[in-house]
Amino acid sequence: MSAQSSVVEAPPITFAVPPTPVLPTGESTFQLEDKYVQAAKALARAVEGETKAWERLAYLCDRFGVRLSGSPGLEAAGDWALEQMRSDGLSSVRREPVMVPRWVRGEESAVMVAPVERKLWMLGLGGTVGTGGKPLRGKVLVARSIDDLEKLGEAARGRIVLIDEPMPEYDHDAHSSGYGSAVQKRLHGAARAAKLGAKALMIRSVTAFSMRTPHTGVVLYDEGVPKIPAIALSTEDASMLSRWVARGEDVEVELKLAAKTLPDAPSGNIVGEIKGRERPEEIVLIGCHLDAWDVGDGAHDDGGGCMMAMEAGRLLTQLDLIPRRTIRVVLFTNEENGGRGGKAYFDAHKSEPHLAAMEADSGSFAPFSIGIGGSPEQVKDLQRYLPLFELLGLKRLSSGGGGADIAPLIEIGVMGLSVNPNGERYFDFHHTNADTVDKIKPGDLERNAANMALMAYILAERDAPGAARAAAVAP
Amino acid sequence: MSAQSSVVEAPPITFAVPPTPVLPTGESTFQLEDKYVQAAKALARAVEGETKAWERLAYLCDRFGVRLSGSPGLEAAGDWALEQMRSDGLSSVRREPVMVPRWVRGEESAVMVAPVERKLWMLGLGGTVGTGGKPLRGKVLVARSIDDLEKLGEAARGRIVLIDEPMPEYDHDAHSSGYGSAVQKRLHGAARAAKLGAKALMIRSVTAFSMRTPHTGVVLYDEGVPKIPAIALSTEDASMLSRWVARGEDVEVELKLAAKTLPDAPSGNIVGEIKGRERPEEIVLIGCHLDAWDVGDGAHDDGGGCMMAMEAGRLLTQLDLIPRRTIRVVLFTNEENGGRGGKAYFDAHKSEPHLAAMEADSGSFAPFSIGIGGSPEQVKDLQRYLPLFELLGLKRLSSGGGGADIAPLIEIGVMGLSVNPNGERYFDFHHTNADTVDKIKPGDLERNAANMALMAYILAERDAPGAARAAAVAP
Repeated sequence: MSAQSSVVEAPPITFAVPPTPVLPTGESTFQLEDKYVQAAKALARAVEGETKAWERLAYLCDRFGVRLSGSPGLEAAGDWALEQMRSDGLSSVRREPVMVPRWVRGEESAVMVAPVERKLWMLGLGGTVGTGGKPLRGKVLVARSIDDLEKLGEAARGRIVLIDEPMPEYDHDAHSSGYGSAVQKRLHGAARAAKLGAKALMIRSVTAFSMRTPHTGVVLYDEGVPKIPAIALSTEDASMLSRWVARGEDVEVELKLAAKTLPDAPSGNIVGEIKGRERPEEIVLIGCHLDAWDVGDGAHDDGGGCMMAMEAGRLLTQLDLIPRRTIRVVLFTNEENGGRGGKAYFDAHKSEPHLAAMEADSGSFAPFSIGIGGSPEQVKDLQRYLPLFELLGLKRLSSGGGGADIAPLIEIGVMGLSVNPNGERYFDFHHTNADTVDKIKPGDLERNAANMALMAYILAERDAPGAARAAAVAP
Repeated sequence: MSAQSSVVEAPPITFAVPPTPVLPTGESTFQLEDKYVQAAKALARAVEGETKAWERLAYLCDRFGVRLSGSPGLEAAGDWALEQMRSDGLSSVRREPVMVPRWVRGEESAVMVAPVERKLWMLGLGGTVGTGGKPLRGKVLVARSIDDLEKLGEAARGRIVLIDEPMPEYDHDAHSSGYGSAVQKRLHGAARAAKLGAKALMIRSVTAFSMRTPHTGVVLYDEGVPKIPAIALSTEDASMLSRWVARGEDVEVELKLAAKTLPDAPSGNIVGEIKGRERPEEIVLIGCHLDAWDVGDGAHDDGGGCMMAMEAGRLLTQLDLIPRRTIRVVLFTNEENGGRGGKAYFDAHKSEPHLAAMEADSGSFAPFSIGIGGSPEQVKDLQRYLPLFELLGLKRLSSGGGGADIAPLIEIGVMGLSVNPNGERYFDFHHTNADTVDKIKPGDLERNAANMALMAYILAERDAPGAARAAAVAP
């Protein structure tokens, strides 16, 4: 008899060492209270055949596809989300104002002009400077990786540098992408190339798969170093330029970028709550970010995460699963290019005791795990609840969790968690025009939402050692 | 002892019924002559680690990416191919002139203008008329499939019709794509919609996978029916329009197409030969098409096929595998939008006895099979040579073969064959900007070329019943 079927048949039951390899063998037994089992079963029933979150995501994407910070789309999407949360029955639904940076892409293009003329598929990196209203033309110098950049030395002066570093394929055994290291060239390549005297930076898009698909994302400039234009080429075009250079040809490209940064604009975090029935002042936060790049519709990144968090709130409200503490749903603004939403939330709420903060910002494929941050003891403590998640079909509560918007909370000791859907194909679509709702299966959002709801419910309901600690560390 | 290892160890050997299920059980034994075994082994050795065909394809794509009929790129690519074939040692290398149609895409765009404004990812279909120098705006009516088109009836009058028919996923069991039926809407949708009074046609791109990737390809107009503008939308955009219509909204789009058809232009088939040592007047043709759509680089379609055919000629020449009959390499022009190259070849050469014609126009993934057309007896006859192909790693000689350019020859009774690489992902890239050389693995082209070379050598060398028949049907 599996742990799962035993839970279904005769709760409450006493589990022996839960079925997860990381549990300490010294631990004996752990009682899963009936209320959690009933909550899990109710959530499982509620999402069976449900597609409401997907329908909402489709509307968000179709109606408010461009949600870059400072855009009218983001604010209109916020208004719509407020309406949705109110109609779901959440309380204290509000926009908490935040000023956000406003970068505007404008017209842009890149062309190889020698040895033959070829259009290049590209996207300016988020935050790049423009080319000053005129074309920027230069010879191409190739670095095979960001680590090779400084080896170019004096040769880079006056050149347009291409970092043609590939991202490895997804590692199916380790359940891990190569994004963390591959993204370094996008973040820091321009500043490092500028130090060498390069006049512009091109990177190979941060992806292991491409259909002539450039990937945008933020570029970071360094103080005191010239800001040079920075673009991502499709992997195909980066490879083509490298082949021409390898043939010994002088390769020239011409860039035109109208990108510019305008004054900060008003935006806000979208907040709604399930008020705790005993300790409403203690918070379990579940969040996501509503802003998205100005390409694609931000379906996986991170409209889907927002629809999960909203759906988690809706499900708990609808099922009358009102825990002892407050569950606060937060749709952060400006994750992609500034993190102002996360910082503003922290500044406004750091004095409230936060038990935990969970972010959904890893796409919306089928559920894979919930990631748990904190000490090994905290992880093991929560992993004991795995049999409840198995009732929802989730097989893993993994170690390590967090998110960009909740990072300031985690830094002061709040436990960070993350919703981790299957990530095998996530970075194919990330920050591209192909990040659209059709890439997400109806039902997957809802199952992720149920997992998120259950974890939030457990954290907000149980007698936990974390509560006192979280309150203690908050100033 | 396997058939393969027995061939390697001690040729010539007598095979029992070869290891293919379609062989007649009544057949007894078949002698594989030593010269074929030696040829297969020599070809296997020659392509081991070889990447010359891939390097050539990369150059063709990088240098002459746009090879649409009537373009300077196609003719320059032809000049380059002539040089390559001459340097490979082929004889009678020449361009056989053909006048080809010249359709030019020009600027084009599609925008959803109501209920919200959204750019649509699109490509005009090859041969479409333009919108006459001004935007064409209209309300969208959706047909779920081309079979549902006529059900729209009077409602289609004055509308822009969208055929949002999906292409099924590749059928891995049957080794078959759904392209054959899914492409009907692209070929005939505009004519059928025009008959209903529609003012433009949009189709869902003919693909089962998309990264916001529109697929072009030819549209066929009917005599006596108005020619209306016809475009392909990315599957993502087709789905979005359908969702808006399903929400009960009035959906309007605006199309701008500068496409036009210019007077016919000079082009040619590129031909080279390995002159037969005994019956040079008898021909085994191996071919492909050098023209490509004006999007992507025509790597899979059909630069790769051409590099296979050229490489087959090079390998046979280099290995001094000169058969009794002539092997003629033909890089046809204008396969994509007119078939003029195939027709011109037929008109010029139909009086020469053709033993067989084999086309490589199904992409350049890893070898899967060689397809054999003709009667069941002809298929079985050639399938007896499978153990030779197994020496090259090919496991299948399948039934059914041919190609668009060799269709006129097949119609008069010439045996048609085709090189069939793995087709699982071919239609993802077909007729898109993502049809680039990086989608092809170095070595795969060369292995396909070796299979093509071996089959051509066998056909041109052996005592075959086909020779007399082919000569007889030629006028």
